[in-house]
Amino acid sequence: RRSQMTVSYTDPVISMDLLRTVLQPSFNEDILAVFRKYMKFFEKAASNVKENVGGDVQPDQLIRDVCRNCLEHAKQLFPETEKTAPKPSYDPAVKRSRQPDDISG
Amino acid sequence: RRSQMTVSYTDPVISMDLLRTVLQPSFNEDILAVFRKYMKFFEKAASNVKENVGGDVQPDQLIRDVCRNCLEHAKQLFPETEKTAPKPSYDPAVKRSRQPDDISG
Repeated sequence: RRSQMTVSYTDPVISMDLLRTVLQPSFNEDILAVFRKYMKFFEKAASNVKENVGGDVQPDQLIRDVCRNCLEHAKQLFPETEKTAPKPSYDPAVKRSRQPDDISG
Repeated sequence: RRSQMTVSYTDPVISMDLLRTVLQPSFNEDILAVFRKYMKFFEKAASNVKENVGGDVQPDQLIRDVCRNCLEHAKQLFPETEKTAPKPSYDPAVKRSRQPDDISG
């Protein structure tokens, strides 16, 4: 036990975030594994964009941007509540009507 | 409606985001699969917090919050370049009620 930490162990948010910090490296590895599945699409798209637009297009940056956007929009899987949000359990039989058509990110 | 979309197909960011929109549902499934691996830890932690703190602690909400935080921090895998963006690293001394870099939706 780290006796010098002044973290409030009774703050629910901090308690959960301590756990998150511990799990994050492993989680990140798993996330990277997922992204590897999609990276070829992003690379192809970024390369097409570069070809079509040229100029100061930086494919690597486009790819990083779109990856961050993927993560941002994945947050919709875990909606903030207040308004009786649906459970985050995923039902593959149900098509989600709330797919991210909002290009707000 | 497709035929009426006035999207600029030559905007690199929009082009990439159109692809993202197409891939997002599949991506979300993969992300959920990853989270299933960690959910038992989050559930246990949230239940402990509820037990220790009680009151108005809502375990489900704590879990959703920490999941969103995982995704937020996973963005560090794809850092923004140039303007040496401040990393959303968590400072346990600072209590946050909101997300660190909640850019948008």
